[in-house]
Amino acid sequence: MKLEAIAHVRTCYGEKFGVPRQSGIVDEAWGELIFTPEFRDPDALRGLEDFSHLWLVFLFHQAIRTDWKPTVRPPRLGGNKRVGVFASRSPFRPNPIGLSVVRLESIDTTHPEGPMIKLRGVDLVDGTPIIDIKPYIPYADALPEAAAGFAPHAPEKLSVHWINNADQGLSDTSRAVIEATIAIDPRPAYQDDASRTYGCLIDGYNIQWKVRDKQIHILSCQG
Amino acid sequence: MKLEAIAHVRTCYGEKFGVPRQSGIVDEAWGELIFTPEFRDPDALRGLEDFSHLWLVFLFHQAIRTDWKPTVRPPRLGGNKRVGVFASRSPFRPNPIGLSVVRLESIDTTHPEGPMIKLRGVDLVDGTPIIDIKPYIPYADALPEAAAGFAPHAPEKLSVHWINNADQGLSDTSRAVIEATIAIDPRPAYQDDASRTYGCLIDGYNIQWKVRDKQIHILSCQG
Repeated sequence: MKLEAIAHVRTCYGEKFGVPRQSGIVDEAWGELIFTPEFRDPDALRGLEDFSHLWLVFLFHQAIRTDWKPTVRPPRLGGNKRVGVFASRSPFRPNPIGLSVVRLESIDTTHPEGPMIKLRGVDLVDGTPIIDIKPYIPYADALPEAAAGFAPHAPEKLSVHWINNADQGLSDTSRAVIEATIAIDPRPAYQDDASRTYGCLIDGYNIQWKVRDKQIHILSCQG
Repeated sequence: MKLEAIAHVRTCYGEKFGVPRQSGIVDEAWGELIFTPEFRDPDALRGLEDFSHLWLVFLFHQAIRTDWKPTVRPPRLGGNKRVGVFASRSPFRPNPIGLSVVRLESIDTTHPEGPMIKLRGVDLVDGTPIIDIKPYIPYADALPEAAAGFAPHAPEKLSVHWINNADQGLSDTSRAVIEATIAIDPRPAYQDDASRTYGCLIDGYNIQWKVRDKQIHILSCQG
């Protein structure tokens, strides 16, 4: 079965490191879905505006491998315990397909590459190819009582501190998405080295931070 | 991007007509997931037993077309109103990929083609190719308050009556899955012809029924 990308997303996440591990955790995380020219048809979205959330079926395009491994080490478990690949949402899977539910903010039909769908709560790296979009149907899809093995809760949020006015000149929206993203601590859980500086690219800014005693210290933010 | 089936499901639904339009509506609907030989590795399922529900990403193998149409007519809307294909869960999509959350009943590691996963609540026709299995993670996937356009509620359940002891000799489990499936009224919503006999294949039985005044009358059930 051969699939084609119907769209790509532009997102606030310029690289894999820092991308939230599930969708919806960082509502500030924005995305813009741009259809491949063949699929730029407003009719294909008719009625979509009556749904608040969408499923994106996408390709883990930065995780494509030719072999497959039966187990993975989820960062959630400290990176040192193995679980089955089908018991995880790891990008390294036999078919590198991902699944995210995102909030539909608006549909811009006047965009030059439109219709363009504005999204919130994304957990996708910039440029991710989208292979399907489906409406979220709560009567079928929402199972709040489901038992969830090793991932029963959303990640804890750490407090975020900007050091030496590192946030100077940032817009409120950039500050919000940066803080919310770093607060959930992108580090692999097995790393807890207060001296280590981490970096990632969010909303066009190169962010550098350290973590000590469950406090995030953002050291710099270069646009 | 080329995908391969990692598994297939055997289900109680011998043909497309009669298959529930979403997963979970008919909990009695059973499935058995059999991996393709290359993927028959119990390690790939390690930890899966701690999750109550799974996502199946599958191919709508009976709905594959070479062209695509921007709109579809959901049976839910009486089959006479068009909505965008991306605002629907129709099988006729640019990439014929489906998404269902099913209940994990058990994993049979002693099955000759094992590990075999026993499922409940399926909405898949027998033989559906599976391209991915993911654990259901309620903190990310469960959004009971999401707004759901034209499909805000599960379908209404009609009352089911067996005519002339048509259920004679049926096992309790077969009777349960047949009743629960026909109760949600597989007919396209634009058909309401009390004289018409419908038929489909459930759990190995060829079922024939009529619908009058929101009552299902099962006329025959041939094993």
